[in-house]
Amino acid sequence: MTSAYQSLTQIFASLSHLSHLRSICGWDEAVMMPVGGGQARAAAISTLDGVSHDMLTQGRVGELLKSAKEEAIDDQWQQANIAWMEKAYHNATCLSADLVKQLAESAMTCEQAWRKYRAENNWKDFAPLLDKNIQLVQQSANIRAEIFQKDPYDVLLDDFSPGFTQSAINPIFDELKAALPVLIEQITAKQIEPLFPKGPFSIAKQKALGIEMMKAIGFDFDHGRLDVSHHPFCGGVPQDVRITTRYDVSDLMQSLMGVCHETGHACYEQQLPGHWVDQPVGKALGMTVHESQSLLIEMQVCRSQAFMPFLSAQIQSFFGEQAAFSVKNLFALNRFVKPGLIRVDADEVTYPLHVILRYEIERDLFAGHITTNDLPDIWNQKMQAYLGLSTVGDYKNGVMQDVHWPSAAFGYFPAYTLGRLVAAQLFEAMLVAHPDIPEQVGCGNFKTIMQWLKTHVHSRASSVDTHQLIKEATGQDLSARAFLNYLNHW
Amino acid sequence: MTSAYQSLTQIFASLSHLSHLRSICGWDEAVMMPVGGGQARAAAISTLDGVSHDMLTQGRVGELLKSAKEEAIDDQWQQANIAWMEKAYHNATCLSADLVKQLAESAMTCEQAWRKYRAENNWKDFAPLLDKNIQLVQQSANIRAEIFQKDPYDVLLDDFSPGFTQSAINPIFDELKAALPVLIEQITAKQIEPLFPKGPFSIAKQKALGIEMMKAIGFDFDHGRLDVSHHPFCGGVPQDVRITTRYDVSDLMQSLMGVCHETGHACYEQQLPGHWVDQPVGKALGMTVHESQSLLIEMQVCRSQAFMPFLSAQIQSFFGEQAAFSVKNLFALNRFVKPGLIRVDADEVTYPLHVILRYEIERDLFAGHITTNDLPDIWNQKMQAYLGLSTVGDYKNGVMQDVHWPSAAFGYFPAYTLGRLVAAQLFEAMLVAHPDIPEQVGCGNFKTIMQWLKTHVHSRASSVDTHQLIKEATGQDLSARAFLNYLNHW
Repeated sequence: MTSAYQSLTQIFASLSHLSHLRSICGWDEAVMMPVGGGQARAAAISTLDGVSHDMLTQGRVGELLKSAKEEAIDDQWQQANIAWMEKAYHNATCLSADLVKQLAESAMTCEQAWRKYRAENNWKDFAPLLDKNIQLVQQSANIRAEIFQKDPYDVLLDDFSPGFTQSAINPIFDELKAALPVLIEQITAKQIEPLFPKGPFSIAKQKALGIEMMKAIGFDFDHGRLDVSHHPFCGGVPQDVRITTRYDVSDLMQSLMGVCHETGHACYEQQLPGHWVDQPVGKALGMTVHESQSLLIEMQVCRSQAFMPFLSAQIQSFFGEQAAFSVKNLFALNRFVKPGLIRVDADEVTYPLHVILRYEIERDLFAGHITTNDLPDIWNQKMQAYLGLSTVGDYKNGVMQDVHWPSAAFGYFPAYTLGRLVAAQLFEAMLVAHPDIPEQVGCGNFKTIMQWLKTHVHSRASSVDTHQLIKEATGQDLSARAFLNYLNHW
Repeated sequence: MTSAYQSLTQIFASLSHLSHLRSICGWDEAVMMPVGGGQARAAAISTLDGVSHDMLTQGRVGELLKSAKEEAIDDQWQQANIAWMEKAYHNATCLSADLVKQLAESAMTCEQAWRKYRAENNWKDFAPLLDKNIQLVQQSANIRAEIFQKDPYDVLLDDFSPGFTQSAINPIFDELKAALPVLIEQITAKQIEPLFPKGPFSIAKQKALGIEMMKAIGFDFDHGRLDVSHHPFCGGVPQDVRITTRYDVSDLMQSLMGVCHETGHACYEQQLPGHWVDQPVGKALGMTVHESQSLLIEMQVCRSQAFMPFLSAQIQSFFGEQAAFSVKNLFALNRFVKPGLIRVDADEVTYPLHVILRYEIERDLFAGHITTNDLPDIWNQKMQAYLGLSTVGDYKNGVMQDVHWPSAAFGYFPAYTLGRLVAAQLFEAMLVAHPDIPEQVGCGNFKTIMQWLKTHVHSRASSVDTHQLIKEATGQDLSARAFLNYLNHW
């Protein structure tokens, strides 16, 4: 006889299959789809979301969950699997199929419009679409907040970074907000101005170099691809991971470091345990841990002094010799700190301030203190206060720069900086166990790093909670200590 | 209050949305997916098919169909829509969800394996997978044959070419089988040997030329793309049509004529009536009519004498001057008849014999006269008899050459030749109405052709049956007359 737990695993495997198709079509939309295909695609995805929602919220799932919890299950993974199923079920059952459908449609429409309006710096026509996203997310968060007895914005944070709340994040972010301006001043005062590599750098060669770098890091091309999109991302499914980049013929490093970043995400997906791949417990443990993987690879390794000999040799093998390609200059270039408008182009010292700006805006939006129409002004005020830069009239490089809000992902941004802190803490622990890692990466050898990450992070998937994962991997609770220590040794 | 008919249109729109995602993911599988993604994709598609099957076969649909037929509907499109819905419903309800799922899984697995085994000329490992496809299709055809009181192979023919049966096809194919060998002998005896263009022809330039040709024919790039796949096809959805080709650096014409062919398919999809796009009546009218559109563009126009001045000028603008690019030589090249092993590379005089070979094999397979293990021998015997060529031991260029059987599409092949006959008959009628078409295409102007096809074929979608469509467009019932007349004026 099929146990309740087994029946649940079948239903959740089906949900995972539908999510596979959604993910591939989402990649297609960003990478392949012609502009005229958008409306039909939005309708198709919206129907799929409705089907998935119906499958997840069918009465049978509630009954099976009750029965499964009475079954004698002592396997930790199975127990965690049931807990994730239950969370998903409760999150979904409190929302009507109609609201889910409206939200999906609004997000798809807004994201498609954003591509056009961002290019045109057109806030006026974009704002009502964004506002609709915000209203619908707020509606969904309010309903769920009541069910879970939580603050609405905490519900959104938990969607991306399970276990994190404003009360956990506020003190960490306040510590960063106090420390970073001082550090920025100190670092920019003593840094040398690096040489910028002279292009043009052909896209074909940049792509080939990116692929070499992906192979070195450990990306498995039998189970993934590299393509081009407006905004770089890591999509697809663990068996077929799709990462993207964008190329600038005058700027070699932007795409290259972006590829290293996305490869960090990709290796997490590719090293998840195959046996659990279609179960909730087999998925990656939220975006904070996901970002910790991409940032560990990009920031702790690929921009480190130890990596520069390999990076320099690789770049020169594709683009010949240049003074800018020296080990010393590449390091200065990768560590160059300069406050700028664009989050994805920011150095890692100013980056957290971009995130804190967005976090504070989201927090105030969902607390009802501000509205969509206030966003450009508030963005500008905070940008002036934290980084001394103006975005007056510059929506494109201000409030409209990111894909997250157009795609209705609110509560996501903190994961970038929380992930950066986790990355610093993981790397510190990894170095204690394997002090020869810097030497290895100097030769382009990522094997020890990938094995350590597989053991301590990837293979665990979602079988433990984030705080436990960090504690067990590093021996300590999450804090800003390792990251600030790293910046103090800049 | 929502009428039963309106409720049905909502359900069928949802089915169309799911089919949109299946179609894009099918394109992705053939064009983009890395080899290691196959197993997970097969499982995902299989689940989607199960969901669609459940949606179509829910008891409510049967009841709604009964009620809708009692509603006072006098609109011809709505009536036809109900008829297609009913046919789909009966076709699906007689099959268990389990059989549908097995069939989808088997087809996906077999098609993926075919890519590998075909390259290896490996019939031995491929045969059991193909046999499983055949067994499952036979099972499905038998069940449906009983319901519809039809022969099982007629059921399969009807899946692709609605309204066509063996008794309709046999006399037409027998007429062709008698006439073609004589014509092949006459034509090959008097034809001059053309010069073959000297490569290499860079893939980038071939692609750019293909795109120019697509634009001239009328392809709308806001609603579609051109890419590369192992076996060329036209996929996607009417709002986002995905055509593919394959490039050979030593053979310019193969890809170019393939692109013209697929563009004929694509324009049919793109010119379907937008209002009905997600309803059964709004879809293309089966594969015979679909092939008539691709073959009309490729054979009647792009390989015609009248088109050669434009073709010659286009080719020379990309690849410079060559004796082989003269109008006279290009025409000789496009009309060169030479029996060969590969259907997709065949000239249009020998092509129908490739189809008749496959039709006869399918007919005998599903009548139980032969089995999977007999296929290589029978293929070879027929190839020897019809075209004087041997495929002994050459599975790759024999029984394993086409994607259709690996993807479980049995009953499809006749559509190519039936479509060729329809193309000849439509073009004959079009020329009577617009005798200046040859002059127009000599300048690369397809506007009159596309408008005529839109009026007489595309805009009608599936609102009439195939025989009525042909009769109303050409004034005559379908026969081999126009095609044989065309060949007699070769």
